[in-house]
Amino acid sequence: MTQQSSSPPRGVYAAVLTPVGADLAPSAKAFIAHCRWLLANGCDGLAPLGTTGEANSLSLAQRLGLIEAMVGAGLPMERCIIGTGSCALADAVTLTQAVLAAGGTGALLLPPFYYKNPSEDGLFAFFAEVIERIGDPRLRLYLYHFPQMSAVPVTPALIQRLKAAYGDTIAGVKDSSGDWNYTANLLKQIPGFGAYSGSEQFLLDNLRAGGAGCISASTNITAPLAHAVFRAWQQPGADALQEELTQARLILQAFPFQGGLKELVARLTGDRQWLTPLPPNRALAPAEREQLFARLKEVRGLEPLLKAA
Amino acid sequence: MTQQSSSPPRGVYAAVLTPVGADLAPSAKAFIAHCRWLLANGCDGLAPLGTTGEANSLSLAQRLGLIEAMVGAGLPMERCIIGTGSCALADAVTLTQAVLAAGGTGALLLPPFYYKNPSEDGLFAFFAEVIERIGDPRLRLYLYHFPQMSAVPVTPALIQRLKAAYGDTIAGVKDSSGDWNYTANLLKQIPGFGAYSGSEQFLLDNLRAGGAGCISASTNITAPLAHAVFRAWQQPGADALQEELTQARLILQAFPFQGGLKELVARLTGDRQWLTPLPPNRALAPAEREQLFARLKEVRGLEPLLKAA
Repeated sequence: MTQQSSSPPRGVYAAVLTPVGADLAPSAKAFIAHCRWLLANGCDGLAPLGTTGEANSLSLAQRLGLIEAMVGAGLPMERCIIGTGSCALADAVTLTQAVLAAGGTGALLLPPFYYKNPSEDGLFAFFAEVIERIGDPRLRLYLYHFPQMSAVPVTPALIQRLKAAYGDTIAGVKDSSGDWNYTANLLKQIPGFGAYSGSEQFLLDNLRAGGAGCISASTNITAPLAHAVFRAWQQPGADALQEELTQARLILQAFPFQGGLKELVARLTGDRQWLTPLPPNRALAPAEREQLFARLKEVRGLEPLLKAA
Repeated sequence: MTQQSSSPPRGVYAAVLTPVGADLAPSAKAFIAHCRWLLANGCDGLAPLGTTGEANSLSLAQRLGLIEAMVGAGLPMERCIIGTGSCALADAVTLTQAVLAAGGTGALLLPPFYYKNPSEDGLFAFFAEVIERIGDPRLRLYLYHFPQMSAVPVTPALIQRLKAAYGDTIAGVKDSSGDWNYTANLLKQIPGFGAYSGSEQFLLDNLRAGGAGCISASTNITAPLAHAVFRAWQQPGADALQEELTQARLILQAFPFQGGLKELVARLTGDRQWLTPLPPNRALAPAEREQLFARLKEVRGLEPLLKAA
């Protein structure tokens, strides 16, 4: 991973899962252990407290607690893009300030997602207010485009307006739309923009188009395979590696996504705490679990991982 | 308004707007003044901190602060149904506990709305967890069905499951779907259920079907007209009164809803603070404002209100 002051960090980021205890509060210890595993197994950086991290199910105090735990554990905050979005303006500001105070600069910001069909002016005003309250030129904001989940798209027109007003602070986007054209068009409009694919299915396409990499939920498991693609993206074998990575991703997303990933991390770590679901997300049913494990055996590159577990 | 221990409070509730200062934090003083105006002008009860109250744009501390301000002002908490929904389980619990600590019993709870297409099991688990953590038989939960905004419907099947498990605690529903059949069917399934129409357009239909009344955004303005319908609902003139109320509602919802209502309260109170929008909601443009005021002159029953302003 190369990081220059004016260009976004490149590579494979995991949208880190959040384990919870029986009291449904985050378990910082298991979370930190998993962060370390990810960094040791192919992740160039971490993107905790996003959708997969169930941040919107956590209170402000719980989210701040996990950021503090990361600092306490000596994790490389400069290689993190931390989810700080909230419909509540004051909370989005508090969380983003916490990222900077923790030595990070990257924040992944959802639009205020409760309100549907907001005006572009209204969304601009929200993001502008966050940026101006932070008032720190080190801040690098990544806008979170996930219309299927947030129901509020981050349009290229809005990004252009924000970029015109706030320059380098508007550092990139996480495109979880599943529509490769969104990223492709954006990179044509803003060359060098820090565009991360929300699915590693588009990792190679994105790197070839000048994008930054991926921030994906399923790289909680597929990090070693995604890393192989990233390392080899300019080499002849890249397409075959991407094909295998895509195969893994497509299997994972054919099952209840959150529950499936937690199931796999539980198996990987031997820590059954990972199996506790945080409502409304749910755990896999026994039959789903068996099916998922059976299907993943088709992916050759995951063999060492599943065998070690 | 008659209230029995086992039946929901009936009547006209306003989904109270939240004024904010230049710092975009709630202005408790203007909020309380408006609460008092509503109770003096036709509201049987108040429903603050819902969608119209922009509660999801406020931090937990800001929401708790408004509940405290209501208690401090001596408002009748037993006549309030307070929005306590949050995607964050811990926050939904804290807010609902605060309602009970404040002497209220009614809480209006959204489903955890960030996650789309959640399973019924997952939603049941969320609501069950809130109820069991509260563990107080006085609690009266009203489930908030607003699929256009939350994107997560509260299905009759889910309500039946919750009611079977938690009896009187599951006291009713706020139906903001705009689909009268939702309420009509629910009242057939659960006679005496505390069903409130999210639009006063359905107030008379709802009362005749055995429903409880309305909890509406636009009753921030139309409370006197809605009160007239509620008072007369079993009398011959009820339909004509409902017709006028519906006319007012339809005009109001033809404009940016939030901005229009705040514009009108600003005019009513002479307090320009009401004009400050909380992003992503926006204020009316001057032309919209003129149009709105012109259209409302068509509603005879609003004349005294607009003249007094």
